[in-house]
Amino acid sequence: MKKLHVELGDRSYPIYIGPNLIGQPDLFRRHISSSQILVVTDETVGLLYLQHVVEQLAEYQVSTIVLPVGEVYKNLATVGQLFDQLIEARFSRNATIIALGGGVIGDTAGFAAACYQRGIAFLQVPTTLLSQVDSSVGGKTGVNHPQGKNMIGAFYQPRCVIADTSVLDTLADRELSAGLAEVIKYGLIRDADFFCWLEQNIQLLKGRDADALAYAIEISCLTKANIVSEDETEAGIRAILNLGHTFGHAIEAGMGYGSYLHGEAVAIGMCQAADLSRRLGFLSDGDVDRIISLLSSAGLPVAPPESLLASKFLELMAIDKKNIDGNIRFILLETIGQAKLPCSVDLNLLDETLNEYGRI
Amino acid sequence: MKKLHVELGDRSYPIYIGPNLIGQPDLFRRHISSSQILVVTDETVGLLYLQHVVEQLAEYQVSTIVLPVGEVYKNLATVGQLFDQLIEARFSRNATIIALGGGVIGDTAGFAAACYQRGIAFLQVPTTLLSQVDSSVGGKTGVNHPQGKNMIGAFYQPRCVIADTSVLDTLADRELSAGLAEVIKYGLIRDADFFCWLEQNIQLLKGRDADALAYAIEISCLTKANIVSEDETEAGIRAILNLGHTFGHAIEAGMGYGSYLHGEAVAIGMCQAADLSRRLGFLSDGDVDRIISLLSSAGLPVAPPESLLASKFLELMAIDKKNIDGNIRFILLETIGQAKLPCSVDLNLLDETLNEYGRI
Repeated sequence: MKKLHVELGDRSYPIYIGPNLIGQPDLFRRHISSSQILVVTDETVGLLYLQHVVEQLAEYQVSTIVLPVGEVYKNLATVGQLFDQLIEARFSRNATIIALGGGVIGDTAGFAAACYQRGIAFLQVPTTLLSQVDSSVGGKTGVNHPQGKNMIGAFYQPRCVIADTSVLDTLADRELSAGLAEVIKYGLIRDADFFCWLEQNIQLLKGRDADALAYAIEISCLTKANIVSEDETEAGIRAILNLGHTFGHAIEAGMGYGSYLHGEAVAIGMCQAADLSRRLGFLSDGDVDRIISLLSSAGLPVAPPESLLASKFLELMAIDKKNIDGNIRFILLETIGQAKLPCSVDLNLLDETLNEYGRI
Repeated sequence: MKKLHVELGDRSYPIYIGPNLIGQPDLFRRHISSSQILVVTDETVGLLYLQHVVEQLAEYQVSTIVLPVGEVYKNLATVGQLFDQLIEARFSRNATIIALGGGVIGDTAGFAAACYQRGIAFLQVPTTLLSQVDSSVGGKTGVNHPQGKNMIGAFYQPRCVIADTSVLDTLADRELSAGLAEVIKYGLIRDADFFCWLEQNIQLLKGRDADALAYAIEISCLTKANIVSEDETEAGIRAILNLGHTFGHAIEAGMGYGSYLHGEAVAIGMCQAADLSRRLGFLSDGDVDRIISLLSSAGLPVAPPESLLASKFLELMAIDKKNIDGNIRFILLETIGQAKLPCSVDLNLLDETLNEYGRI
């Protein structure tokens, strides 16, 4: 087992990475300070792992809730259900929520933990590659608004992240690829060497080679932990983690939450961001080709949905969280391995990217 | 104008207290960093002061929302409405919410500010005595759950508090008395001299003597600011601000939100807490009489609702936020002017208080 550390003063916490971690009750116990626990999961993960996790927690008063699967349920109504259950069970301010699932479960359960009685403890137990390398680390919790992704939420750090690499064995191929999109993101924004390593090892990763996956998760979490430690609430550098997300969130909201996986939408968005970076004179044609090629090899879509027109993109991106006073701002790439802070761009070039990149 | 200071490191902020402050655009401007402002108010306050406040903000892009009056609307659905309006207006993460109203407006709008895009700026402009001396200061935001008061919320500090004493001229007598309950609380928990001053000046306060009110507001805010600076998230001493609130919240939830004003329920609750403190050997009969007498002189109810039986009290108090692992805990008084940290009590004595105090 590897142990990384997210340094945030009195909100610091460890990330455990390794095989068979959800079978180790000691890991859980270390971060639970009361008898009351609510385990939040979804139907897919619940069938596979809920009983196993609950068995580790035999000495606690455990309540469970199994949510339907999908981004479409990451909303305020679901958070309301979690509040109902917490109150119904008479859970105190020292109770603990365990989020057992992918990003939707972690974000939703984490936001409920942030708000129930103004904040109770929570543990992230991410079960998808995407949540292990990205959403479970860093304390961004929240839910979607029908008109905008993650528009309602809180910065609220977990007590620990338990990333069990064995559970990835049961992950659908499509979900594995979606996770690889965020892994590739770390190479693009901050680590050219890692990007090269990914180019060389993408087939091993797709083939679920345990060592390759463990290495990719570790490097990804390390990069994320470092960036979050530098800038917890995204006043500056943390924004580069949103490479591709401005376009990606528009795809998710515009096509209906759940029709594209988050990682798929981000993959397309990163290609659009690369194309826009090229038009602004930062990336070469060759750089953009390498990026598209790696994402494509990872099994990801690289062209925007045909039905999502440029005008709709613009409308949806007008409510992105990085905007200031209504101006759309983007994370762009200086080079492969180095992202720029959010900036506004020439609207003509943006139009070109939206109308030309990936359009037939 | 008096200026007090809530010291919380990089979340520190001023409290302005004085006449005609909502007519001073400079005070607002100092704490607003973008062009987008949402003013949240209710129908009563809106009729009296909304136009005046909006006129001060002529150079900004101002959106307004007028909520129906009452504690019954302090819920998750109302917060959802605020999110809808913020998104509809395409408000960015650097937008500002101004809460213009009493505690319900401040708590609800503050919670929306805490969660919209994971946190935007907000200004408290409290218009009731209760919100000026208590709820607007200290960053407790949140809404009620049908089964429990303030069960959903966040610790989220405003950029400033603008307490305009002139607006108290239009406050209903019942609302003025409700505010005096929290003023008296500060004397009880931490300031015996202030309690004596209140005994001597209660008629002036009820008669809205401007100097007496200004003094009472200042001392109350000062005490609150000091306690909040010592313990922002209620890990310890801040809990004493909840004197009477365990009983009071049960009265509010049990009788239906809005049938008792918060201050009225707290007044009864402080009498019950005093009675329980006496049964535990802390207060004398004379102390309890002084407390009941002062609250009564302030125009407040001092006996629990006849229809709210002891068994219902116990059921409702089982979900109070101060509880640990299901044990009800209370703030009690050592003497007038000194509160104790939350503690569990002998259930027989609690039964006596619930069944005997204020019952015919």
